[in-house]
Order: sequence, then C-alpha cells, then structure tokens
Amino acid sequence: MARMPQEHLDARRRQILDAARRCFARDGFHATSMQDLLGEAGLSAGAVYRYFRGKDDIVDAIAAEALAEVTAAFDAPDDTDLPPLDGIVDLVLGTETPPLATSTESARLLVQIWTEALRSPALAARLGEVLASTRGMLGRWAERHRERGLLPTDVPAEQVADVLIALVHGFLVRRAVYGDADADAFRNGLRALLS
Amino acid sequence: MARMPQEHLDARRRQILDAARRCFARDGFHATSMQDLLGEAGLSAGAVYRYFRGKDDIVDAIAAEALAEVTAAFDAPDDTDLPPLDGIVDLVLGTETPPLATSTESARLLVQIWTEALRSPALAARLGEVLASTRGMLGRWAERHRERGLLPTDVPAEQVADVLIALVHGFLVRRAVYGDADADAFRNGLRALLS
Repeated sequence: MARMPQEHLDARRRQILDAARRCFARDGFHATSMQDLLGEAGLSAGAVYRYFRGKDDIVDAIAAEALAEVTAAFDAPDDTDLPPLDGIVDLVLGTETPPLATSTESARLLVQIWTEALRSPALAARLGEVLASTRGMLGRWAERHRERGLLPTDVPAEQVADVLIALVHGFLVRRAVYGDADADAFRNGLRALLS
Repeated sequence: MARMPQEHLDARRRQILDAARRCFARDGFHATSMQDLLGEAGLSAGAVYRYFRGKDDIVDAIAAEALAEVTAAFDAPDDTDLPPLDGIVDLVLGTETPPLATSTESARLLVQIWTEALRSPALAARLGEVLASTRGMLGRWAERHRERGLLPTDVPAEQVADVLIALVHGFLVRRAVYGDADADAFRNGLRALLS
C-alpha cells in the first residue's frame, strides 16, 4: 500500500471520527451500522478499516475524545487565583472552547457513553480514571476554599468535589435529554443556593 | 381463550416487567432480545405477547414505572413543614422506599432511559412531562424558602429548582455509572456548600 503523509492520515482519521460523532449523536451507537458510517463519511470500507478495526474501535476513540474534552475543561485553575465555587459553571460550561461548552452533541454523546459503560468494563474503567483525576482537581480547589474559611472544615474536600461533579453531570443530562439547559440561568440558580 | 382473574393477569404482567428490568439493567435495552426476556421470565412467547406487543412496548412500560418512581420521590412535602434545601438528598435518596432510594438498578435503568429518549420523541415527551411537574413542585419549595428570606429574591425559584434537579440527576449518574455514590457523603458535601 502506498505510504501516505502523516497529515493526510490524521485528516482522514478526523473525517471518520467526525462522521461517526454525527451518526452516534443522531442515531445512537447501537442503531448506527458500519454501513451508515461509511455513507456519512463518504469513504469506502477499505479506507475506514485502515484506521479502525470496527465499530467498537471507533466508539472507543470517540469516547476517548469526549473524555479528553471533560478532562481539559477541569484543567487545574491557576494557583494564584481562587475562583468561587459557583464558578464551577464557568469553569466547565462557560468556556469558549467547543464542543463541551456550546454543543448539545457532546452532551448527548456523554449520556450514550454512560449507557455504553454499563456494559463495557473497559470503558467504565476509563471513565473511572477521568473521574478520579477530576475529583482530585476539584478536591484541591475545595481544600483551598476551606483554608480560607469559605467552607466548613469538618467536611472532607472530596465530598464537596463530588457535589460539584454531580452539578456538572446533572447540567449535561438536562442539556442532552431535555434540551433546555441554559448556562446563565443555571449559574443564577447556583449562586442563589450558595449565597 | 380462558378468562383469567384480574389478580392473576396483574401478577403475570408484573412477572414479565420484573424479568425485563433485570435483563435491561444487566444487558441494556438494545442487547436484550425477546428471546432473552422470555427465558428470564420463564414464559412462552404466547404468554408474553398477550400483555405486550413487543420489546418497545415493554421498554415503554418499564420507563413509565421508573418515571412514576421519580415523580413519587418528588411528591409535594407537607405544607406545614419546610424542609431545608439540602433536604433534597433526603427527599429523593434518603427515603426508605425502594427502588429509587436504595437500588443501583433503578439508577442504571434511568441512564438507559435517557439514552433511549435521545431517539424516541414519545419517550422524550414523557420525560419532559415528569420534569415539568418536578420542576413545579421544587419551584414552590424554593419559593417558600424565598418568602422566609432563606434565598435571594432576585433569582426565579424555578432556576433554583433546576439546580436541585441537576443535583439529583448527577447523583444518580454517579450511582449508575461509577457505582460509588454514597448518600450520606453526598448530603455532607451539599451541606458544606450551602452553609
């Protein structure tokens, strides 16, 4: 087989993953066949199988990307700056970086990934790793609030982190499933509760 | 066909739905065939088709039951009593009534129902109705907190309700997908945040 330059390989791989994301977000993992995916990408089976062993392999790559988005969104805030805890909304949802922030598609994919993880120990393990790192990051953030007397000292920081994580998950469920999640309104409601 | 007493009909229907819940929670909606379901219920196809037109019909009945559980959990608290807002945890998760409170199975079913709703407008509409009624109930609760000066008056009560709903959804995601949601720890974290 002729050797293709790396950037061509990367672009082709991107083309397949983008087509798969569109199919999965629209029809779900299970209802999407390899045939649907080839049609959406406008590629032959040979072209696609050069990059992925099959649908499961593509699902795995899509999930890895979605999880990388989540991890990036939770990237440690600058140490010199201590955002308020209701800033969780801005941290995750107020960012300008698509697709987590602005896209319903990402939220829909995440809900599907959760369902997929109910049956896939490998995917569940990967989700568990992302959760552990997010929890550590948010726990350190809560810890700094505690040190400044902004949170009670008798509650472990990780328990606060778990509530913040639930808020984000809950917001994404609302956006994915009910389609009516407004980040500004959510931020308002959260500020009222925390005030 | 011989006429069966109503209580026998009800028991048979229950038997089918319980078997379906076990199958769906274990293997998912999509990976469960009618054949799997018949095996799990220990019934013939004829016996099952007397009650349900097919798998979709059973999925619909299961979803209706799961949503009824959620609605019941949010049932209006007594008017003479105003539970604190972090009581949302007790209201939904601290109840003694299974299966929402104590069962991971219900949480797993709910995540699957969300995914199913991404492709089923009928199911999405039903979820929307449950959400609207929950939102109304929690909004009235938040309103009473506002009247007593326990919440700022410049934020609509429904925006507070949306945050409470997200907390519950997020907790159920944690329980379903990550399997490590502890109601006591969550209540602690929430109280620390609201204090």
